[in-house]
Amino acid sequence: MKKITLLILLSFLTIGFSLQAQIKDDFKPSTKNQPGQEYPQVNSQGYARFKIFAPAADSVRVSLGLGGRGGTKLEKTEDGYWMGTTEGPMDEGFHYYNVNIDGGKFNDPGAKNYYGSIRWESGIEIPAHDADFYALKNVPHGFVQQILFPSPSTNTSRRAFVYTPPGYEKGDKQYPVLYLQHGWGEDETAWSNQGHANLIMDNLIAEGKIDPFIIVMTYGMTNELKWGHLHEFKIEPFQTVLIDELIPYVDSHFRTKANSANRAMAGLSMGGFETRMVTMNRPDVFDYWGLLSGGVYKPEDIKTKSDVKSIFISTGSKERPVEVKAAVDALNEAGIKAIAYVSPDTAHEFLTWRRSLYQMAPLLFK
Amino acid sequence: MKKITLLILLSFLTIGFSLQAQIKDDFKPSTKNQPGQEYPQVNSQGYARFKIFAPAADSVRVSLGLGGRGGTKLEKTEDGYWMGTTEGPMDEGFHYYNVNIDGGKFNDPGAKNYYGSIRWESGIEIPAHDADFYALKNVPHGFVQQILFPSPSTNTSRRAFVYTPPGYEKGDKQYPVLYLQHGWGEDETAWSNQGHANLIMDNLIAEGKIDPFIIVMTYGMTNELKWGHLHEFKIEPFQTVLIDELIPYVDSHFRTKANSANRAMAGLSMGGFETRMVTMNRPDVFDYWGLLSGGVYKPEDIKTKSDVKSIFISTGSKERPVEVKAAVDALNEAGIKAIAYVSPDTAHEFLTWRRSLYQMAPLLFK
Repeated sequence: MKKITLLILLSFLTIGFSLQAQIKDDFKPSTKNQPGQEYPQVNSQGYARFKIFAPAADSVRVSLGLGGRGGTKLEKTEDGYWMGTTEGPMDEGFHYYNVNIDGGKFNDPGAKNYYGSIRWESGIEIPAHDADFYALKNVPHGFVQQILFPSPSTNTSRRAFVYTPPGYEKGDKQYPVLYLQHGWGEDETAWSNQGHANLIMDNLIAEGKIDPFIIVMTYGMTNELKWGHLHEFKIEPFQTVLIDELIPYVDSHFRTKANSANRAMAGLSMGGFETRMVTMNRPDVFDYWGLLSGGVYKPEDIKTKSDVKSIFISTGSKERPVEVKAAVDALNEAGIKAIAYVSPDTAHEFLTWRRSLYQMAPLLFK
Repeated sequence: MKKITLLILLSFLTIGFSLQAQIKDDFKPSTKNQPGQEYPQVNSQGYARFKIFAPAADSVRVSLGLGGRGGTKLEKTEDGYWMGTTEGPMDEGFHYYNVNIDGGKFNDPGAKNYYGSIRWESGIEIPAHDADFYALKNVPHGFVQQILFPSPSTNTSRRAFVYTPPGYEKGDKQYPVLYLQHGWGEDETAWSNQGHANLIMDNLIAEGKIDPFIIVMTYGMTNELKWGHLHEFKIEPFQTVLIDELIPYVDSHFRTKANSANRAMAGLSMGGFETRMVTMNRPDVFDYWGLLSGGVYKPEDIKTKSDVKSIFISTGSKERPVEVKAAVDALNEAGIKAIAYVSPDTAHEFLTWRRSLYQMAPLLFK
């Protein structure tokens, strides 16, 4: 018995050792780097490698690493740089991270910044095997427009981004609209910056997989509360901005089909939580509802079946796939059209939501 | 004699001491801070105060301070923060800066980031006495649209931002277009992010001071060379992108008055240098030329007087006002319509260029 234990232990050690030795030396700069920056780098297996200049620092640590293990500790090199590689491969897709220098939280000067966690964080991209669907291709591109719409309820002009599909600027066609919300800690820049929603749409349209529609992305006012106090979140202020101020502005400044049959609402994470509350409060406004890693609807949430044409509920396979599938089954059994999507090998991160948008878009406005 | 020297010395010391003592305690968070961040702060005299958490650091320094004095050294406080105030008041307006932590260059986690110096830098705003002209007001707002235009010469889709004035989206009116370039180290985000070009236009239009026009901002390809090698810069690749690719795309996707009488080109700093080269190479394309802290035209630069309707040349008062005024005088004497503008009490920074746009816009397309 002891011999067997030792053998098993030895083979684990061997596997561990050989895995470590097998880190491929094909590291390339992350596609999310600042112009001309060589680091951070990513290899074909999904390992990330960091190199940060801080010659007089005592400790440099990157928050990115294997889940729950406290990130990656960098080691000092002779030329004043600190270097380190993640302990294992990261999930494919986009990750936020930051750098701890001597106890303070900063960003990696090599990486571009993305708004997440109520701060502009560093971003890194582990190339996904299916990255083609959100790649910048030589196809007609829609525009992403920054608008400032009047908001009497909050006494300011609020910002939103509006994706208009290629060809919108010509002709007089009217389009359906998807209102698409970011998650907690993020803002209205997230879906185009880290989500590439515009490129996903451009590619879907170029391939003839969807009829063009408009996407509107605004700030969900979710960051006013600290994490842990989200149960105190009140939907009313945002619902007023969205329903009474933004939608009328969009309908009067863009060529929309201004009715519920041509209006969808979806959101990721806390944006899903918001979507669920707004659509349940005002089912008359939107006919298509989507929750992306943002909870589920139960059959009893839907007062009148005709209020909603279809519900899309998605999750990463590393999140709650069983719960999402069960919820969709229950909705379908209750006669409510619902579709589940589980993103393979991803967690609560943007590749889950890029894929969710790609899967949801063809189902809208049918 | 000795007594007089001592008296003078003493009075200087007293003035120095009393100035230091007179730093007003009315510091407020900079308007360029990340949401919810209390620091950096600015007082009514233009002093900037920084507070950065880095408990185990040995040295924290902010690049911002009085010109040429090496910025501001922060002092460690007991709770792990480093704090410091600039030695004197800063010029009004927007400033880039970064933070040196133990020898490495990072950003201030409290401030938003702006692309300058070929990196995303921290930004701070010293409230200007005339800030009203670029303030966000309750007036109709134009849109800032991100477009991706095909560029065969560089084999990619390139990004530009297009400001369309309020009301553009309705009706079928055609508009003149200003092509407006950023400076070295910056990119196509600069004029809207740090320049507030869209708000300047919204306000000018709301006050009836200009007829609405479109502004197009794209990347000037100026950052491919390091500072100090700028004499090696070749204009041809950018000129091809601008003249042969971007302008035709804008003219076919936006409702423009597609002729030289309704087309202007201007740029700040190295964008002015580019403007000068492009307009001299292709005077047939633009009738209005503007150099903002970006050199001057000499009379011999203009081959045919009818090539240009008017030239706008500006500078900060702390830059080269004498040279700019002399150049404009020489142009006018040669029968070429030219206007000089000197921004009071500013140097080679964005308040100079915000004011320059505000001064130049009413002169265009007349």
